[in-house]
Amino acid sequence: MTSRPTEPSSFPRGSVCLVGAGPGDPDLLTRRAAQRLADADIVFYDALVDADVLGLAPGARRVFVGKRAGRPAISQNAIHRLMIRAAQRGLRVVRLKGGDPFVFGRGGEEALALSAAGIPFEVVPGVTSAISAPALAGIPVTHRGMASAFVVVSGHAEEGYRPILESLAPNAATIVVLMGVGRIGLIAALLIDRGWLPQTPAAMLFGASTDQSLAWTTSLAELLDEESIPDHAGPGTIVVGEVVRLRGVIGSIAEDESAAVR
Amino acid sequence: MTSRPTEPSSFPRGSVCLVGAGPGDPDLLTRRAAQRLADADIVFYDALVDADVLGLAPGARRVFVGKRAGRPAISQNAIHRLMIRAAQRGLRVVRLKGGDPFVFGRGGEEALALSAAGIPFEVVPGVTSAISAPALAGIPVTHRGMASAFVVVSGHAEEGYRPILESLAPNAATIVVLMGVGRIGLIAALLIDRGWLPQTPAAMLFGASTDQSLAWTTSLAELLDEESIPDHAGPGTIVVGEVVRLRGVIGSIAEDESAAVR
Repeated sequence: MTSRPTEPSSFPRGSVCLVGAGPGDPDLLTRRAAQRLADADIVFYDALVDADVLGLAPGARRVFVGKRAGRPAISQNAIHRLMIRAAQRGLRVVRLKGGDPFVFGRGGEEALALSAAGIPFEVVPGVTSAISAPALAGIPVTHRGMASAFVVVSGHAEEGYRPILESLAPNAATIVVLMGVGRIGLIAALLIDRGWLPQTPAAMLFGASTDQSLAWTTSLAELLDEESIPDHAGPGTIVVGEVVRLRGVIGSIAEDESAAVR
Repeated sequence: MTSRPTEPSSFPRGSVCLVGAGPGDPDLLTRRAAQRLADADIVFYDALVDADVLGLAPGARRVFVGKRAGRPAISQNAIHRLMIRAAQRGLRVVRLKGGDPFVFGRGGEEALALSAAGIPFEVVPGVTSAISAPALAGIPVTHRGMASAFVVVSGHAEEGYRPILESLAPNAATIVVLMGVGRIGLIAALLIDRGWLPQTPAAMLFGASTDQSLAWTTSLAELLDEESIPDHAGPGTIVVGEVVRLRGVIGSIAEDESAAVR
């Protein structure tokens, strides 16, 4: 009556472990993720994975399979083939993804490909940026009397976020947008058009848990003007909802105010 | 330009650390959470925290502040006072919460109380059951072409879940309900009434990541009949949406089928 076919502490040769790397700080990896990295023979990693996290796999070959400016990205199918071949050669393979492997990480597709190829695999959930980036800036995604639900969407493609954001009653939930910095003006306009008040507070969070962190508190109305958004390399997490107001209180002790633009 | 007022590896005397304990398995705590438990003088913990997790704080006094059948629960204000007094006595205080402290964990209220009392505190995000319970059963909350958003609600009180579930367009997102086992019939009826197809797949997940895990795959129509729901101690995680269909493929390798009721 156990849900685990193998001893959880084991990492058999010829298998793949889909590992969530968390938001960036190596201390926010799970104990199991760190153990799998320590035991890995090869690690396939994304652009979202922090260099310090890779340091937890000193004995492994490390293969970058993410997107880098100016170079063609490796296809998802090619990543599947690389993982499958490495496992078939008897290696202990870690597929390392920023945040959690099943939150917009294409981890489901990779699990299906491994399953179809008959490769044993394991999923190690991670701390998602959707919740931890706000938390580390002093913003709880839920708060009694303020938000009793939250929605997580990807800003990557309009067909992904439009159906849910169009149907959502104003203030029915905290909204978290991942990978949405480039479309935030459009998203803010959509929400205001659906009845959200322009003064609804919002926050843009970059580099959560790293020494490059930046937290910017604003409003839906101000986000309409994308010119006002601070430049920052890397993907950001956007939070919309009344809970953002708590940052002034909760964030004041947890955070160095000099890190904030305003 | 750092977001951290103190060296992240430090846990000063007279401070409180709000720690997410993850879904149950001690290996799914973060490295920082384990470090804070190892350094703690006193740990205040909830009913959702696994006994094995407490084993990571062998040197600390451990104080149960959760709800137990047949006994009056300690009030939230009393928990605040206990934490504040312990910190004022110079102790290193860990407040340990199942999952993530800011996902229906009342962590925001505790952070506000600590802030008002001038007690330094830190938040250590955890792996939330909302994402990891499905993942460990082979269900990704997002999946390309199937679900490009997910919603997390608490089933604890109708006023919390009704506004968002009523407004949500059918299949616009994967729905995850925490603490909703007692109301799942009402929630299924609400969704069907709002246009979700009765055959929409759903899963009920208990004891994720522990050796008491149970995963049950069903449909909204079947959930209308609460008599059909398997008995299980402890809170469950409910997932509604097309992604539940992936469990048959992704879960088949990751999971011992004997653990499933059907």
